[in-house]
Amino acid sequence: MIPATEILPDSLPAVLLGLETQIDSLRETGAMLWQRGWSVGTSSNYSVVLRRQPLELLVTASGMDKGRLKQADFVLVNERGEPSVAGQPKSSAETLLHVVAARQPNVGAVLHTHSIWATILSDLYFADGAIDIEGFEMLKGLAGIATHEHKQRVEIFENTQDIPVLARLVEARLNDGANPLRHGYLIRRHGLYTWGKDLEEARRHVEIFEFLLECVARRLMLRGALAGVTATGPVAASM
Amino acid sequence: MIPATEILPDSLPAVLLGLETQIDSLRETGAMLWQRGWSVGTSSNYSVVLRRQPLELLVTASGMDKGRLKQADFVLVNERGEPSVAGQPKSSAETLLHVVAARQPNVGAVLHTHSIWATILSDLYFADGAIDIEGFEMLKGLAGIATHEHKQRVEIFENTQDIPVLARLVEARLNDGANPLRHGYLIRRHGLYTWGKDLEEARRHVEIFEFLLECVARRLMLRGALAGVTATGPVAASM
Amino acid sequence: MIPATEILPDSLPAVLLGLETQIDSLRETGAMLWQRGWSVGTSSNYSVVLRRQPLELLVTASGMDKGRLKQADFVLVNERGEPSVAGQPKSSAETLLHVVAARQPNVGAVLHTHSIWATILSDLYFADGAIDIEGFEMLKGLAGIATHEHKQRVEIFENTQDIPVLARLVEARLNDGANPLRHGYLIRRHGLYTWGKDLEEARRHVEIFEFLLECVARRLMLRGALAGVTATGPVAASM
Amino acid sequence: MIPATEILPDSLPAVLLGLETQIDSLRETGAMLWQRGWSVGTSSNYSVVLRRQPLELLVTASGMDKGRLKQADFVLVNERGEPSVAGQPKSSAETLLHVVAARQPNVGAVLHTHSIWATILSDLYFADGAIDIEGFEMLKGLAGIATHEHKQRVEIFENTQDIPVLARLVEARLNDGANPLRHGYLIRRHGLYTWGKDLEEARRHVEIFEFLLECVARRLMLRGALAGVTATGPVAASM
Repeated sequence: MIPATEILPDSLPAVLLGLETQIDSLRETGAMLWQRGWSVGTSSNYSVVLRRQPLELLVTASGMDKGRLKQADFVLVNERGEPSVAGQPKSSAETLLHVVAARQPNVGAVLHTHSIWATILSDLYFADGAIDIEGFEMLKGLAGIATHEHKQRVEIFENTQDIPVLARLVEARLNDGANPLRHGYLIRRHGLYTWGKDLEEARRHVEIFEFLLECVARRLMLRGALAGVTATGPVAASM
Repeated sequence: MIPATEILPDSLPAVLLGLETQIDSLRETGAMLWQRGWSVGTSSNYSVVLRRQPLELLVTASGMDKGRLKQADFVLVNERGEPSVAGQPKSSAETLLHVVAARQPNVGAVLHTHSIWATILSDLYFADGAIDIEGFEMLKGLAGIATHEHKQRVEIFENTQDIPVLARLVEARLNDGANPLRHGYLIRRHGLYTWGKDLEEARRHVEIFEFLLECVARRLMLRGALAGVTATGPVAASM
Repeated sequence: MIPATEILPDSLPAVLLGLETQIDSLRETGAMLWQRGWSVGTSSNYSVVLRRQPLELLVTASGMDKGRLKQADFVLVNERGEPSVAGQPKSSAETLLHVVAARQPNVGAVLHTHSIWATILSDLYFADGAIDIEGFEMLKGLAGIATHEHKQRVEIFENTQDIPVLARLVEARLNDGANPLRHGYLIRRHGLYTWGKDLEEARRHVEIFEFLLECVARRLMLRGALAGVTATGPVAASM
Repeated sequence: MIPATEILPDSLPAVLLGLETQIDSLRETGAMLWQRGWSVGTSSNYSVVLRRQPLELLVTASGMDKGRLKQADFVLVNERGEPSVAGQPKSSAETLLHVVAARQPNVGAVLHTHSIWATILSDLYFADGAIDIEGFEMLKGLAGIATHEHKQRVEIFENTQDIPVLARLVEARLNDGANPLRHGYLIRRHGLYTWGKDLEEARRHVEIFEFLLECVARRLMLRGALAGVTATGPVAASM
């Protein structure tokens, strides 16, 4: 008889003892992001910063169901994205992208999600290099933005399985003194990276970016519809 | 180690003692509106009227996660939108918009939400000054409307960070004897304000407006599709 | 201080004693239909048949929040749609539409819902008098349909506030010997009526009709998009 | 009085004793798939492999509400899709499609779902024989796929009520040495079949296929909109 794999043992590995609060916050975050449809199919990975000198992150292990994370589904990694303690499960292949975000000042948590809109808008606007989002009140949900009269440039990187190369590209943009990348970015046909001073703020940034991307997509569909309808006669909301 | 910010202390400030029922109703309302996607990213704010002479409101504090409001995330404000008791957290910048709605007769609760459809339709129809919604049975969910043969004019105000100016504009329309604004209004690329005699009715009005706005948007998309399809040949639902 | 209206007393009126099972099934049904977005804003009404000789229905009282029905939010009505016992809350204005459906053989429950797609498709196809739905496997979810090679004609009635007139029109179509209306129907810009031998089956019919209507709507949008894209060049799913 | 059918007895038949873990995993899976809208209206069926020599499956009984499966709503079937023990409820008409998938090596669970997008895309692309999905990071969620630079050919079979004929067609494609069907397939205007080494993996495959199909559909709609908008002037995300 094939054993039921749904019911897995869930005991905290010794290396994670004392981190129950951070782990449970990430588990609850995963359940929420999975429910929204932004972390389905074991996609996505999440991390929180535990220490800065030297950098240490608590990050989701590779290939876990984000809607039902178990206490053991986490790994400690160091500033090179490698396990900081031996004998742990493999961390996500994209751990280095968490590390380069976490190296920035005031970053306490990094969230990577895979939504439908992020996937297809990052493809549709790839040739432009970015999606410019402007004039929405919800932009004020991004840390430090105090007015809707702000243009957020959401940059789009080409997807690759060579994460170290991508991590260097992203870090160069984060450290660009003249015009640094801020709040988050997209990977083409892949998803969103965003972060915050703590997990609360990173969650808020996911919600804000997803809201804004959906606005961009649905507005484009409404405009397309309006163009089609007006080509055949006048249109009014009350029609 | 960076502390987990997810688990925050939740004890009722002395100034809010005795208001547990109203606070818990607003918390449950926030959880529902967040779940629907109408209050994500710490957007939105809610209030209930506690007293009329002089006016006193219980309103959400600024910047809180509406899906997980805590008992302490509320503030008492007076008829000028200022804290009615010292030592409270900052209330929302938009508190004045709650006050001007609450000054109207028979208003016991005010809800402000940020949905995708409210955000983009308020932009698409901004030049018209309003979205006229007519002929839907669901219009009867607005207080005092007894037939679907009703035209609801949902006015759209330009977005601004100067809330006192906007509040005066809104109040003038509310007090316009000839043609007063009723039930709610939109702010461009921002969201919806609506209210009711109590929190139940204000919640119902949010649901009704969101339903009607989604009908307007999706109907426009269907009409656009139909225009495109019929341009290339006949179309039937059973095709 | 304005009392919190969220927390209402919930005790079963004497007239409803012994009906707890049916009442709780309808309450759970309401919570599900509200959650799906098909019964928001106190719209919709539901009934189950209690007796046939003479006909007696348990029906939702008028104007209640269907997502949070209380035990007292129900009324007993007779074969004329009037309260069968004195002193009860007002039943829905549309009770007669429940009665005419319940008079049919093998009907044990009637559900009326207000979805976005039912609202706008009933308007878009109103001139055709019906939406013909054909060829979908999900048609087999309608009682007595054993193959997807079936054409379901979903008739559309004009909306009206004169329910007795509408009830006579519907009953005439239900009793049309040559070509009787079956499973359910739409009211223009209003919603869906459907029924089943018991509440389980009526719930299933709501889910089936909503699924099929959404298929009709989204298929139309995809065809419109395809027409637009192919007008400018070839298109493939992998593009 | 018509009995309430909502509250059904739920006791485990003797033939299913000892299978509580597998049964509860399938029940929880059904609740999740129903909640997503992929198994509404008693559609869908699910199975897990209990034994390989000879093959025995635990499969959902016919016509049950997948959102509220009871412990008794399951049947044991043999390698011919027939009940392996007498006196059980009828298994789904499509049980043979579970059997042919389960005969493949490393298959421990089979899930069949009915989503909106699977229903209409399987129709829209039927003439092509398949939907080619390429270049998405989420393709890596399919077992054995290690890069987004992969083209997944999702084949589409014509719908039929003659399941034995369809089962032979599918099995021939599964056993096609040169170019075998992998991971899952669509049935026209009907739904998706997918599987995995265990129920976890099969669930993941449902989520991955549904995500990818929704990407294909929404991308097509965005392209159609863009074609309509650009026909009348320039367009930018920030417009």
